[in-house]
Amino acid sequence: PGKKVLIVYAHQEPKSFNGSLLTIAVEELTKQGCSVTVSDLYAMQFEPRATRNDVVGGLHNPEMFNYGVETWEAYKRGCLSKDLVEEQKKVQEADLLIFQFPLYWFNMPAILKGWMDRVLVQGFAYDLSKSYDFGLLQDKLSLFSFTTGGGQEMYSKEGVGGDIRYLLWPMQHGIMHFCGLKVLEPHICYAPEAVSEEKRKEMLTAWTQRLKTLWKEEPIDCSPEWYFK
Amino acid sequence: PGKKVLIVYAHQEPKSFNGSLLTIAVEELTKQGCSVTVSDLYAMQFEPRATRNDVVGGLHNPEMFNYGVETWEAYKRGCLSKDLVEEQKKVQEADLLIFQFPLYWFNMPAILKGWMDRVLVQGFAYDLSKSYDFGLLQDKLSLFSFTTGGGQEMYSKEGVGGDIRYLLWPMQHGIMHFCGLKVLEPHICYAPEAVSEEKRKEMLTAWTQRLKTLWKEEPIDCSPEWYFK
Repeated sequence: PGKKVLIVYAHQEPKSFNGSLLTIAVEELTKQGCSVTVSDLYAMQFEPRATRNDVVGGLHNPEMFNYGVETWEAYKRGCLSKDLVEEQKKVQEADLLIFQFPLYWFNMPAILKGWMDRVLVQGFAYDLSKSYDFGLLQDKLSLFSFTTGGGQEMYSKEGVGGDIRYLLWPMQHGIMHFCGLKVLEPHICYAPEAVSEEKRKEMLTAWTQRLKTLWKEEPIDCSPEWYFK
Repeated sequence: PGKKVLIVYAHQEPKSFNGSLLTIAVEELTKQGCSVTVSDLYAMQFEPRATRNDVVGGLHNPEMFNYGVETWEAYKRGCLSKDLVEEQKKVQEADLLIFQFPLYWFNMPAILKGWMDRVLVQGFAYDLSKSYDFGLLQDKLSLFSFTTGGGQEMYSKEGVGGDIRYLLWPMQHGIMHFCGLKVLEPHICYAPEAVSEEKRKEMLTAWTQRLKTLWKEEPIDCSPEWYFK
């Protein structure tokens, strides 16, 4: 109650299973007394490309464009583009970030990767020697909630896709942990398109149930052992 | 000689280190008698977002937009958007795909992820039961060539970033291997921005040298052992 949640949502279709998962999260968390903000990336036509347009006004070094340096400098000068400043404000205020998306190619869709690339700027999310446990977004929680095309048996140690945790490493450790956020267990709905309507309903109920006790959860130990044990 | 190479390049600045690596690859491979095509994603303003615009004309199911289904159907009907058809033609003709990019957040930049999301459509790159060793892009090679911000010591089993191979899994196995391509050893230039001019020159020379004998290389064994042994 009183907690702030930012849901970064990457699906084109409100009537999709991802859309239902989003609706459930908004409703359940609101019911708990949380304040919920949604960044609906496709609806916002969020720009995924990291370009010179992310800096308002002159560049630090117009002779040779370096995206990381330019956005770092622009952050310090308050010259990042408006859409980035707005997303950073939402992140800053949030106690919990939920990322809701369909898995595309063992990873998040490009529009969501673009959110990571552009919003989590040096100086804002991390800095020189301020990364991992010392990242600038400490005391925040993160949670990846996603759907897959393949079934759960594919994503096992013996399955063709390998353990699902293998593909969580770059997202959870390489991004969230890097910025200092704590990582809650991912929420994975396997192959909703391939199962029965009844099974789909069970999955939606399971998400509601999990959200009810989410604030009591302990973060995972975001070390190689959790992923590759 | 006579081989066709597609380089998918994702850097904003031609004068960057990535730009130099691109130039070297084009020059060396051309010298060998290869035919080289470059998709310069930022220069093309390549669209990374997977949307309804990727289908020309009517949708298979306009009531509920499903990107995977719609692009699969559009591929079969020859109704994918022009930019995708062009990229697919380049892929189809290539014997080797090289991806040249700076590592962003343990992964490729969003603009390149968008290329994967949008170009490697079902029916074209894989299909029902045609994935991994049976993927539709068999007999092609792939190579990820990228630069990092952090040094090599960071990306070791004991380093904070973990073994660099951990983050190669989703890219090499989850995308390339999934589509049937064989995977050559990645080419990694660690922290070019942090080292001396001399060291940078050595890195460029090493890339030229590697390219000279590239066609004799054996692909890696793209199984969990290679990544997590």
